[in-house]
Amino acid sequence: MVIILKKDAQAESIRRLEESLKVKGISANHIEGANQNIIGLVGDTSGIDVENLLAQDCVENVRRVQEPFKKSNRKFHPDDTVIPVRNTVIGNGSLQVIAGPCSVESEEQIITTAIACKEAGATMLRGGAFKPRTSPYSFQGLGGEGIKLLVKAREETGLPIVTEIMNGADLDLFADVDVIQVGARNMQNFELLKALGKCDKPILLKRGLANTMEELLMSAEYIMAGGNMKVILCERGIRTFETMTRNTLDISAVPLLKEKSHLPICVDPSHATGIVSLIEPLSLASVVAGADALEIEVHNDPKSALSDGGQQLTPAKFAEVMAKIKDIAAYLGRHLGK
Amino acid sequence: MVIILKKDAQAESIRRLEESLKVKGISANHIEGANQNIIGLVGDTSGIDVENLLAQDCVENVRRVQEPFKKSNRKFHPDDTVIPVRNTVIGNGSLQVIAGPCSVESEEQIITTAIACKEAGATMLRGGAFKPRTSPYSFQGLGGEGIKLLVKAREETGLPIVTEIMNGADLDLFADVDVIQVGARNMQNFELLKALGKCDKPILLKRGLANTMEELLMSAEYIMAGGNMKVILCERGIRTFETMTRNTLDISAVPLLKEKSHLPICVDPSHATGIVSLIEPLSLASVVAGADALEIEVHNDPKSALSDGGQQLTPAKFAEVMAKIKDIAAYLGRHLGK
Amino acid sequence: MVIILKKDAQAESIRRLEESLKVKGISANHIEGANQNIIGLVGDTSGIDVENLLAQDCVENVRRVQEPFKKSNRKFHPDDTVIPVRNTVIGNGSLQVIAGPCSVESEEQIITTAIACKEAGATMLRGGAFKPRTSPYSFQGLGGEGIKLLVKAREETGLPIVTEIMNGADLDLFADVDVIQVGARNMQNFELLKALGKCDKPILLKRGLANTMEELLMSAEYIMAGGNMKVILCERGIRTFETMTRNTLDISAVPLLKEKSHLPICVDPSHATGIVSLIEPLSLASVVAGADALEIEVHNDPKSALSDGGQQLTPAKFAEVMAKIKDIAAYLGRHLGK
Amino acid sequence: MVIILKKDAQAESIRRLEESLKVKGISANHIEGANQNIIGLVGDTSGIDVENLLAQDCVENVRRVQEPFKKSNRKFHPDDTVIPVRNTVIGNGSLQVIAGPCSVESEEQIITTAIACKEAGATMLRGGAFKPRTSPYSFQGLGGEGIKLLVKAREETGLPIVTEIMNGADLDLFADVDVIQVGARNMQNFELLKALGKCDKPILLKRGLANTMEELLMSAEYIMAGGNMKVILCERGIRTFETMTRNTLDISAVPLLKEKSHLPICVDPSHATGIVSLIEPLSLASVVAGADALEIEVHNDPKSALSDGGQQLTPAKFAEVMAKIKDIAAYLGRHLGK
Repeated sequence: MVIILKKDAQAESIRRLEESLKVKGISANHIEGANQNIIGLVGDTSGIDVENLLAQDCVENVRRVQEPFKKSNRKFHPDDTVIPVRNTVIGNGSLQVIAGPCSVESEEQIITTAIACKEAGATMLRGGAFKPRTSPYSFQGLGGEGIKLLVKAREETGLPIVTEIMNGADLDLFADVDVIQVGARNMQNFELLKALGKCDKPILLKRGLANTMEELLMSAEYIMAGGNMKVILCERGIRTFETMTRNTLDISAVPLLKEKSHLPICVDPSHATGIVSLIEPLSLASVVAGADALEIEVHNDPKSALSDGGQQLTPAKFAEVMAKIKDIAAYLGRHLGK
Repeated sequence: MVIILKKDAQAESIRRLEESLKVKGISANHIEGANQNIIGLVGDTSGIDVENLLAQDCVENVRRVQEPFKKSNRKFHPDDTVIPVRNTVIGNGSLQVIAGPCSVESEEQIITTAIACKEAGATMLRGGAFKPRTSPYSFQGLGGEGIKLLVKAREETGLPIVTEIMNGADLDLFADVDVIQVGARNMQNFELLKALGKCDKPILLKRGLANTMEELLMSAEYIMAGGNMKVILCERGIRTFETMTRNTLDISAVPLLKEKSHLPICVDPSHATGIVSLIEPLSLASVVAGADALEIEVHNDPKSALSDGGQQLTPAKFAEVMAKIKDIAAYLGRHLGK
Repeated sequence: MVIILKKDAQAESIRRLEESLKVKGISANHIEGANQNIIGLVGDTSGIDVENLLAQDCVENVRRVQEPFKKSNRKFHPDDTVIPVRNTVIGNGSLQVIAGPCSVESEEQIITTAIACKEAGATMLRGGAFKPRTSPYSFQGLGGEGIKLLVKAREETGLPIVTEIMNGADLDLFADVDVIQVGARNMQNFELLKALGKCDKPILLKRGLANTMEELLMSAEYIMAGGNMKVILCERGIRTFETMTRNTLDISAVPLLKEKSHLPICVDPSHATGIVSLIEPLSLASVVAGADALEIEVHNDPKSALSDGGQQLTPAKFAEVMAKIKDIAAYLGRHLGK
Repeated sequence: MVIILKKDAQAESIRRLEESLKVKGISANHIEGANQNIIGLVGDTSGIDVENLLAQDCVENVRRVQEPFKKSNRKFHPDDTVIPVRNTVIGNGSLQVIAGPCSVESEEQIITTAIACKEAGATMLRGGAFKPRTSPYSFQGLGGEGIKLLVKAREETGLPIVTEIMNGADLDLFADVDVIQVGARNMQNFELLKALGKCDKPILLKRGLANTMEELLMSAEYIMAGGNMKVILCERGIRTFETMTRNTLDISAVPLLKEKSHLPICVDPSHATGIVSLIEPLSLASVVAGADALEIEVHNDPKSALSDGGQQLTPAKFAEVMAKIKDIAAYLGRHLGK
């Protein structure tokens, strides 16, 4: 950490600052420049509050030189994290394809869709039971009942199930779930993250609409600090000024997060743009860029879907996309699933 | 709502679409253009799912012509909402100034700060008991204990208290609180919003970092749909590409939200930029633009604050800012407080 | 185009509006809704000024239903545009790789780099002669002299040359250039676009940092309206809130622009993030997503480059990246170059 | 400037780096940390290219500690710059109101509007002769003819005239103009900025849609580096994800730019949002926040305007807004005009 001193910083104020740092085991190295004096801090600065430094009289600005995320940082854990999910794993070089409807709507719907997804080659099943909807007047999901239907679909197909949690208080309802998803709008719902840090399920953590990669890693840190190391990061598009697509897929996040962190990376090409015709090219691009998993919305009858109809693939179209995905995975020497 | 048909839309597909609309009491008016055929929908379209329309074979695009928010919409409720808060009100043309520390840290700290805020002219007291922090390694607040200290500060000063909730399960702890705040990161924590819709406390709803004004109004709608009409909207800066300020205060939101909605508007100039020297000009600008309330961070000793030290005012500086605020309120013919 | 009328719109004002439209050959279809009356316009609305409609007393809002770009629109020109560039073409399904230094610095530098690029498999040579730099104190390029050095490098290698223009007045200096590049900061320099519309060179038009895809197509429209149909669109990263990368590559723009327009698409993975290690994955992702060309910065000695040193590849690293690019092109059945 | 070294940086590479810095008169101070070694640079680093440092083997990252703008920096020029404009000045604590139509359309239109603006209290006249339009099919302005009409309007009213330049080659046509405006889309048209640096007219430099304040100051630096110190900065709204307003007025830029720079600041509330009803509150907020000038679009008949009809005020509405502006200026002890 580097402190930039004000031009008119008082010696006494600087002395007090240094003493307060010394107490925390941090030593201060002065560099006197032509226009600017700076102090370089040596020691473990992870507990230092930048805001606190900024409040000191003599401080003009502070520049961090270290990354604030620790447990998710590849520097300190060079090997890829491999996360077991029921009978398979994520992060070992294989490619997982998580497919299924936006919302679980009925037993028939989820089982029909799950069978179609499996036949096309999906390796896990997704389905929303608790639905975060922008409008209170929209379908809010079947709740706990939806999870039971997912379990039935797993019995039918063998596919591990992935579903979203919106409230730490509901955690008991997720006992039978294989991967718990945290939605983009809850990425900084820290109470929820703390609750998930205490469970031992894999967590699929979606990047918030306007959250930086560093903030995504800090949210992973919340879960990991609680003891749960099984975090899968998920890029699903960020909010920008562009209006032709619902969000902007930040494809660079895939290789960059893999460089900065040892956690596996998933991409959700469905929410990324909300445009059905882009799901195939974005899926292929994500795999080539290094994604460990894809999460794709598929519905047995999108025209009568209770949510997100416009961005869900039909089983037939999904089968076409999967054929291309399998092909490129084979080209890259990666197998689908385990 | 206007549906733009695909160039090659099949008559049969259009017929099915129209029938499905007729069932919902909506009639379809065709307009055949040179390059594009469109259908204008007549009837109550608030229950129509745009996504569902987009999933139909014949549909290229959909344009909404009505605003999706109802209970918060000024069109249907022309009069300003006035919200009673203990012995005062928000939204009646008066100006409320909510001041206090980022976090409640100790009895001495909150009481000293509360007294100083009151002396300078603040009309309500803020203080964080549950703290949403980006890093799990930062101070997380005193929790329920913090709320008890706020109550003591209210006993001492008479100032109504405002504090943030992060989890619907904690609602009982807020029984003594006068205004419950929802932080920016929880603006779309719909489970929390639903819980608050069932209580009868005023809710200070902060705009999310990357949420549009329409989404803010839809989140207000969640609370109001539950039966709680006492919602105060709060602009606190949005996330943009600019890096010199922490966020970008969207000052236009003040007059525009007042035009679109009957709910009172608060501005938080402290979080808006994170720069102490900008709090005064942004406070004055917000008042002139029509804000009903300001929320300003003040700490009795920012240099030793456990959070957000850099953006909190000292009591002395706050007194200076308040003198200017009182002055401009007087110029505008608005009184401070009730 | 759909006009949404104000609730209290006067019949007389509506009548005047309709008459002014009739003069332009546009007829108005009324749809009276429960809460909102709208008018659907039939006829050629491309000459209608939305702003003008918004200024009428009776108008609350206007929604466009047609795309404002014509000549670049695939709807009206279904076939891909194929652009001849010297002895090769862009847009026929082949993959072009434009490589070379950020700036032309000296004869030795450009020729050494050009030879290395060609050996690695590049099919065109880029190099900046006129340099748009944020700071007036940075190296501003060799100007016309730089173009002469590029021509020498072409003589040496046979690679067609691509270089940026900043001022329409310099057009004569570009007589020997094969492709003229318009930089992101000049995407809406309409005077420059008009000048380029009158020349017959292929134009590589880079998307502005904060410009939508529609605006990019409108800028292409400027060039095409002048008579020059040889426009290549280039995605090079847009400005977002993310700070870990210099810009955010909008990979969705590749398949979406190809869907909306018949013009060829190039991707610049170097400027997209400014991070050398991401050039390979982003290049591969772009090719898979459908890009017709890549533009990659390569310098014979990045450590002593006069500009953008940090994001330029060494010839050795470029050769590695090219090996992967050739491999994936072969997998996709696309040849490099013609 | 602080260099963060790679963990595995080679001593030889560091030695070479230091030598290359020494040649430029910069000394390197080493700070060895627990996890990170850094080098603090002492000397005049304004000529150092960050990109060049990033290209060195041993460098992981670079953090600037000094601001890159010099001539526009208040640190080096503490006093406010006061710019003479014909018979008045900008930047001396007075408030200038620049009003007039988006485009000059005819002699009658500009003279009628100019008279109305003057009567309402405007102190300068704006009007577009060269118009940057997103679409090539929109009205492009009267060009040089428009400037002649502005001069006539000045003769009629005495108001100094402000108009936009789009091309350095047109500079001769601006000989009679009092203030030359650079539009947002040309803020980084460096060729144009260089040309303006060589003239001696005041320049009203508009912030680009997606440009940071630092970049705005760097563009001012381009003009000032050429010898023309008469630069007025103009905030006119930036591009964000919000769609209810055309742009987002960055009100914080007013006090922050005045803190960082000695140049006067103008605000354009018309382009900031494109919504007529917001012009008044945003004008008042800007004045209170410290703006030296406002630029407001007024048209004698917005309904028949050839451009931007929807955001231009009628003379009657402008007179109402001006009454409020005069009132608040009086309250603040600032006079309108000189």
